Amino acid sequence: MAGYVSEAVIKRLPAYYRHLKELEQEGIMQISSQGLGERMGFTASQIRQDINSFGGFGRQGYGYHVTDLRMHIGHIMGVDQKHRMIIVGSGNIGTAVALADSFPRNGFETVALFDNSERKIGSRIGELIVQDAAGLKRYLDENTVDIAVLALPANCAQEVANQLYAYGVRGFWNFAPVDLKVPADAALVNVHLDEGLQVLSYRMQQTR
Amino acid sequence: MAGYVSEAVIKRLPAYYRHLKELEQEGIMQISSQGLGERMGFTASQIRQDINSFGGFGRQGYGYHVTDLRMHIGHIMGVDQKHRMIIVGSGNIGTAVALADSFPRNGFETVALFDNSERKIGSRIGELIVQDAAGLKRYLDENTVDIAVLALPANCAQEVANQLYAYGVRGFWNFAPVDLKVPADAALVNVHLDEGLQVLSYRMQQTR
Repeated sequence: MAGYVSEAVIKRLPAYYRHLKELEQEGIMQISSQGLGERMGFTASQIRQDINSFGGFGRQGYGYHVTDLRMHIGHIMGVDQKHRMIIVGSGNIGTAVALADSFPRNGFETVALFDNSERKIGSRIGELIVQDAAGLKRYLDENTVDIAVLALPANCAQEVANQLYAYGVRGFWNFAPVDLKVPADAALVNVHLDEGLQVLSYRMQQTR
Repeated sequence: MAGYVSEAVIKRLPAYYRHLKELEQEGIMQISSQGLGERMGFTASQIRQDINSFGGFGRQGYGYHVTDLRMHIGHIMGVDQKHRMIIVGSGNIGTAVALADSFPRNGFETVALFDNSERKIGSRIGELIVQDAAGLKRYLDENTVDIAVLALPANCAQEVANQLYAYGVRGFWNFAPVDLKVPADAALVNVHLDEGLQVLSYRMQQTR
């Protein structure tokens, strides 16, 4: 049984998932906490502690069964289910998300793309036609959508998120450079690409 | 004098910076640890502890001077300096980074864009013409570049990073879905957009 899974472990789950997938592709079926740790840059004890916290999977002397553990982590994260996404905002980021093939490959399928600019409505991005954002409510009345990707300017992102919440959306992936707030029964990840660059800048100063 | 700044605090620095910038824009000049905490979703004591760890700035009863603290944090992160970036890979992500206006606004200027696809070399993206990746060494011999943005497939990202390191690049912002490794005198941030979606999927399960 999974105990309390800490926020730090949650943020590491995708890395576990990715490394286990790579191991599968390399034909590796079993791996020790030591081996997985070396690969991921963690200690064996950290690996054991993390994995224990969501289910206690390894067997002394056997290590972890790669596919079982990958599937278990995928199930915990819910990435063994399909997710239907809409993208609001068809600028550079919205377009990049719409055209990326890695998201649908992992079960996150973009089903519609919206914008409020006359210039963009009706244009084609990949296999999608940009729809008028004025039609969002109607679209969400008629279609099931799990996640809204917010690829909008900072100054309207919260308002759009509030509307989408009112229309029933409960998952938000926000690229606007602002920390959005959503009610407790909704989930939100703020991306903040700029902050990655600032952390990089910090690290570059330290290595100089 | 700044003491040891933990990895967790480093990752929070950009959020401090962003919130302090917003406060400046709102004309707020002074703020208590309590007020800043409420805004950022931390306790006052966490705010004080964080800020103490990089310099001890507040004064009992006065709180923090917003602009001084913002500039201090900007200086720690090195974002008060200009950074020259090249982008390697002119696909969706490379294009989005090249066209985003938030990066140059924060001092991260894209000076060149490279690809190895005949179809893309010579095409225009914003104000840049896509150059042949075969010319990277020569370009780096003749130009100062601080950061390489790697917007490449996973299977060639490490090799390209190794080459760029050999040509003198010491900062890497990696969008390929793989954990790159760089020598200790270089700095690296791996973005992993996919992982944000997986964390979102996890949180959506928890709120259901």
